[in-house]
Amino acid sequence: MTAQLQTTNNAKTVLVTGGAGYIGSHTVVELIENGYECVVVDNLSNSSYDSVARLEILTKHHIPFHKVDLCDREGLEKVFKEHEIDSVIHFAGLKAVGESTQIPLRYYHNNILGTLVLLELMQQYKVSKFVFSSSATVYGDATRFPDMIPIPEECPLGPTNPYGNTKYAIEKILNDLYNSDKASWKFSILRYFNPIGAHPSGLIGEDPLGIPNNLLPYMAQVAVGRREKLYIFGDDYDSRDGTPIRDYIHVVDLAKGHIAALKYLDAYNQEEGLCREWNLGSGKGSTVFEVYRAFCKASGIDLPYEVTGRRAGDVLNLTAKPDRAKRELKWQTELQVEDSCKDLWKWATENPFGYQLKGVEARFATEDMNYDARFVTIGAGTRFQATIANLGATIVDLKVDGQSVVLGYENEEGYLNPDSAYIGATIGRYANRIAKGKFNLGGKDYQLTVNNGINANHGSIGSFHVKRFLGPIVQNPSKDVFTAEYILVDNGKDTEFPGDLQVTVQYTLNVAKKSLEIEYKGKLTAGEATPLNLTNHTYFNLNKPHEDTIDGTEIKVVSKKSVDVDKNVIPTGKIVDRNIATFDCSKPTILGPKDPRYDYCFVVDENAKPKQIDTSNNELTLVAKAFHPDSKITLEVLSTEPTYQVYTGDFLSAGYTARQGFAVEPGRYVDAINRKEWKDCVTLKHGETYGSKIVYRFS
Amino acid sequence: MTAQLQTTNNAKTVLVTGGAGYIGSHTVVELIENGYECVVVDNLSNSSYDSVARLEILTKHHIPFHKVDLCDREGLEKVFKEHEIDSVIHFAGLKAVGESTQIPLRYYHNNILGTLVLLELMQQYKVSKFVFSSSATVYGDATRFPDMIPIPEECPLGPTNPYGNTKYAIEKILNDLYNSDKASWKFSILRYFNPIGAHPSGLIGEDPLGIPNNLLPYMAQVAVGRREKLYIFGDDYDSRDGTPIRDYIHVVDLAKGHIAALKYLDAYNQEEGLCREWNLGSGKGSTVFEVYRAFCKASGIDLPYEVTGRRAGDVLNLTAKPDRAKRELKWQTELQVEDSCKDLWKWATENPFGYQLKGVEARFATEDMNYDARFVTIGAGTRFQATIANLGATIVDLKVDGQSVVLGYENEEGYLNPDSAYIGATIGRYANRIAKGKFNLGGKDYQLTVNNGINANHGSIGSFHVKRFLGPIVQNPSKDVFTAEYILVDNGKDTEFPGDLQVTVQYTLNVAKKSLEIEYKGKLTAGEATPLNLTNHTYFNLNKPHEDTIDGTEIKVVSKKSVDVDKNVIPTGKIVDRNIATFDCSKPTILGPKDPRYDYCFVVDENAKPKQIDTSNNELTLVAKAFHPDSKITLEVLSTEPTYQVYTGDFLSAGYTARQGFAVEPGRYVDAINRKEWKDCVTLKHGETYGSKIVYRFS
Repeated sequence: MTAQLQTTNNAKTVLVTGGAGYIGSHTVVELIENGYECVVVDNLSNSSYDSVARLEILTKHHIPFHKVDLCDREGLEKVFKEHEIDSVIHFAGLKAVGESTQIPLRYYHNNILGTLVLLELMQQYKVSKFVFSSSATVYGDATRFPDMIPIPEECPLGPTNPYGNTKYAIEKILNDLYNSDKASWKFSILRYFNPIGAHPSGLIGEDPLGIPNNLLPYMAQVAVGRREKLYIFGDDYDSRDGTPIRDYIHVVDLAKGHIAALKYLDAYNQEEGLCREWNLGSGKGSTVFEVYRAFCKASGIDLPYEVTGRRAGDVLNLTAKPDRAKRELKWQTELQVEDSCKDLWKWATENPFGYQLKGVEARFATEDMNYDARFVTIGAGTRFQATIANLGATIVDLKVDGQSVVLGYENEEGYLNPDSAYIGATIGRYANRIAKGKFNLGGKDYQLTVNNGINANHGSIGSFHVKRFLGPIVQNPSKDVFTAEYILVDNGKDTEFPGDLQVTVQYTLNVAKKSLEIEYKGKLTAGEATPLNLTNHTYFNLNKPHEDTIDGTEIKVVSKKSVDVDKNVIPTGKIVDRNIATFDCSKPTILGPKDPRYDYCFVVDENAKPKQIDTSNNELTLVAKAFHPDSKITLEVLSTEPTYQVYTGDFLSAGYTARQGFAVEPGRYVDAINRKEWKDCVTLKHGETYGSKIVYRFS
Repeated sequence: MTAQLQTTNNAKTVLVTGGAGYIGSHTVVELIENGYECVVVDNLSNSSYDSVARLEILTKHHIPFHKVDLCDREGLEKVFKEHEIDSVIHFAGLKAVGESTQIPLRYYHNNILGTLVLLELMQQYKVSKFVFSSSATVYGDATRFPDMIPIPEECPLGPTNPYGNTKYAIEKILNDLYNSDKASWKFSILRYFNPIGAHPSGLIGEDPLGIPNNLLPYMAQVAVGRREKLYIFGDDYDSRDGTPIRDYIHVVDLAKGHIAALKYLDAYNQEEGLCREWNLGSGKGSTVFEVYRAFCKASGIDLPYEVTGRRAGDVLNLTAKPDRAKRELKWQTELQVEDSCKDLWKWATENPFGYQLKGVEARFATEDMNYDARFVTIGAGTRFQATIANLGATIVDLKVDGQSVVLGYENEEGYLNPDSAYIGATIGRYANRIAKGKFNLGGKDYQLTVNNGINANHGSIGSFHVKRFLGPIVQNPSKDVFTAEYILVDNGKDTEFPGDLQVTVQYTLNVAKKSLEIEYKGKLTAGEATPLNLTNHTYFNLNKPHEDTIDGTEIKVVSKKSVDVDKNVIPTGKIVDRNIATFDCSKPTILGPKDPRYDYCFVVDENAKPKQIDTSNNELTLVAKAFHPDSKITLEVLSTEPTYQVYTGDFLSAGYTARQGFAVEPGRYVDAINRKEWKDCVTLKHGETYGSKIVYRFS
């Protein structure tokens, strides 16, 4: 995707119901790539919000999410009121054929009422375009007719299970509604054949609850060891290898079919609107054995299987005739079963348990259960856990052996208080001061809002600490390790700085090592250059349960060299020594109730030439160590950065008071953007990548 | 119907949804005649509670009614909690084909969700038997097949309008639900052909809102002058007279089909339950012209008609093959189109505007909107109006030229107060005192509970004033005249008196004459004989808006002869004169603030032999006249009765105080049941009819 798309103005907004689910989530990716805005509604009854959080990272796009059941008219109407919805793609619905035969009432109630409420609100809010997620199941056994394989849209319908009956009933509803007022409606009914695969990124895929009903997810679970073996239901069909033939379609192809349908509706300008069905299938049938072999090849595993008897209701061949979609929607499948297997395997191996990870919890940080205001805890229930907010990608809490060692607020209100002291937050675009808020880049003068004496501090009014980061993608790549990745898209009207910036904040929590690594990456997606100096502003109190202050904390740092500043706290150009214990001192500096007071920018190595940092190569330097004799907790701060601000929290406010926490903020030089000798290290040019790492390690 | 059925114990309770509607109400009659109890649920969106009130009179049976929309799960669940429901007959649903093409969403939402909620509650409350009101509409145009006229149940379905689609979807739901748990369900799907006609009583019938969609109601409206002429859509079909052929079925036959189906389910004892469809039709087709001629004959009117073009969707012939119902349900139609036309004509002429009458209003007398606790006003908005409660068939209010002239309570709470003074109520079984509560009938001694000194008064603990009367049937038989008929079934455990009694109270309000006639009729449905002495206990205050007392009221009566009583207020056998002005006096008795005090039983004619009264022959006698000089309102009390109690309200309580109203209560002799000379007139024997009339006339 391109930067242009991320800043599309006047983009049409598509309401995607069931957008957290398998096909819905893949369609959201394609919608955003095609310049649409998406609003996702999902009751999460069979899906996870994590898929939406991952979509945000995947698309670099904010995706408003509402946990609403479509049967809840009031809840759904709020969504119609809040967003100017241009069209609807309706995925939401219960979809397991087998389950539908067990609890048919729930299927009818949920699927039909949900659709009716949705259509009623569309009518009320004058939204006319609707793409409906139907299914080839509506045809039932098309082999009952002599000439209906491959199946054309004209094939008489005859679903054979409650799930199919709900899809059939909804198709009838759409036809009847269209006929009641043809000028007002454009309905596209998409009849899916067998969607398989996953997004090639490996970030989203099918995450079925319980025993998978479908071949591919079942094979994937056998392959990752969650199931013993594959059952093949009958090898005595009249096919090339005796197994039944189905029309498998890569979910990304399927998702693109929705874009084609939506664009068709967008472009359709007849007076009468339309209500029309399109098959979405490849037109090519594959046998079960063929798919089995493709998956074994993709995974490199010879899956154990057993052929058992035919399954009731199964028939030889259900392949789509996709000609109408090709002709009218200009859409056809591009990917093969082999692609599907490869992408599924990537998804399955990178997410063996889907979205739901043990050791990860989330809670809402606002009363209105806003999903953008979540606090996600990684390492939950372990000896070391971190809680991170979308707001500011802020470290809300760190717990060492169950004991909180940082300052933080219970909910977003605390962080949004204008007097709050950037507690735990990501600081950007420019940590620390820029003199008078002025700088020159590429021969052009820039003026930031002055927000700190006569200077601009911590990015001024565009400070990252009150910006909402996208995501996170939370993963558990190996035992004891959790990652959470956030992205901030800091563009145009959101900033006084030049250039469109994307910042990734990747938290890596290692429970065994009790370390939290923060990796920042920045790059410009538009513009020539920007100042950039990122840090994290966590305040530590290593004795928090016992004392409300840092009193008694012992610290040592790597160097006592520090940037000299004038009365406006702007560097004079000199480097001076501060009175602080370094690692080679036998005794640490002990922070007392009032003294010593630090708010200095220390320099790791005054001889090193400051420059942009490649975090993949750069070594981490231990810059500070703190210890409290009561709690016996030691904190080590390591980083890739040339400086580190030490601040004893003497001006804490907004619920906190002086010296309740201290901060060690690795970063780049104060006002470096205005200093020739330091300017390079805080200037991010187009094509470059800004990188830095900070590690908080406890013992 | 027989008396036995009315007292059926352990009768199975059938929940009838849509029971206030056309087919539902006729089915309730048949259900009760077949010994079932009914609970009616209806949202009254296209029907009137009056049909249920009429059903109560028609069946002499209480019919619990709940105004609940089936989509309101909470409301419907209350019904399941309150009643032990054995089976459900489900009529509720929107049913106009034409309308369904205009507002299909409403049809789907209402019909399908309503059914789902109902089935969910049946599942929850383990109710397994369900008779569904489907329609031949599900077949669509059966003439599209070569051999499907008459239409058998095996005919493939294919509804052609949203209404039919909702019926089809519900049939699918029933099939799927049955297949999900065969042991738990017995479903009968009844596919109606063309129901016509009305109950032969003329009390219930089809009452369509707006322009009728169907031939018969349309003809009826033409016949009574509400529509100009009949339109016949096409006379160029290939039928005997060129008009299309349909299978018309008398609604009473159709209703009986439901009983047959329900009994079939009741008797069905296979392990697996069932879900089965039955056509309900006659198997005989009639053309439009044939029906037209039958109706013209029945009504004696040559209806004007015009043949116009064919109507879209109409086909030549849709006649049922009813063999399956005949074979399995042992049901077939018994009535002919001619019967339907005759009964429809009776209904139409006796109720030219259906149930809804101008000048009739109703309100709830309890906070829970209990339909049994309604206050019905007849003559509403006219110069003379009466409000009557089901409780006690009580006169709650009488207004003369907008001015209330009687005492009464705002709601039922007042009337149920044990200290209330029978205000406005029907008094029975025995108005006035029975000495010591004892009497002997047929050689047997009876003891009533003593509730008044050492006597039983006003029927004692079984007093009619706190019994709920069935009905009413409200009618407007001619200009300015409104009638309201109530029935009390006073049986077995409800009474200490011998015999099962039915009492009818018929109010006839004549606005022009400003008279309210009350006619009582009593008869025994079981037992040999009972004491019976009925009256109405209205308290008048002719100057109510100005004064809270009867002070200044001038009265005259027909006779000063009065029953002498002992210290226990029981007749001594003597007749004495009281000090009261009679009609031949020049001056009236003036009721003062404290005097004179009356609570005497006056005798109209001491020489007349008291006996049972035939109200159709008996002359009314003017027994009392009252006038207030401030209001200038005159009251005349007339009756068929041998005595009249005059009571100056000196013991009024429960919200009222002494002398706020006076009563003139025509009736029979005090303690007559224990006096040989009077006993006949208060002894109702089996086969006899007790009759009496009271008229309150104002000027």
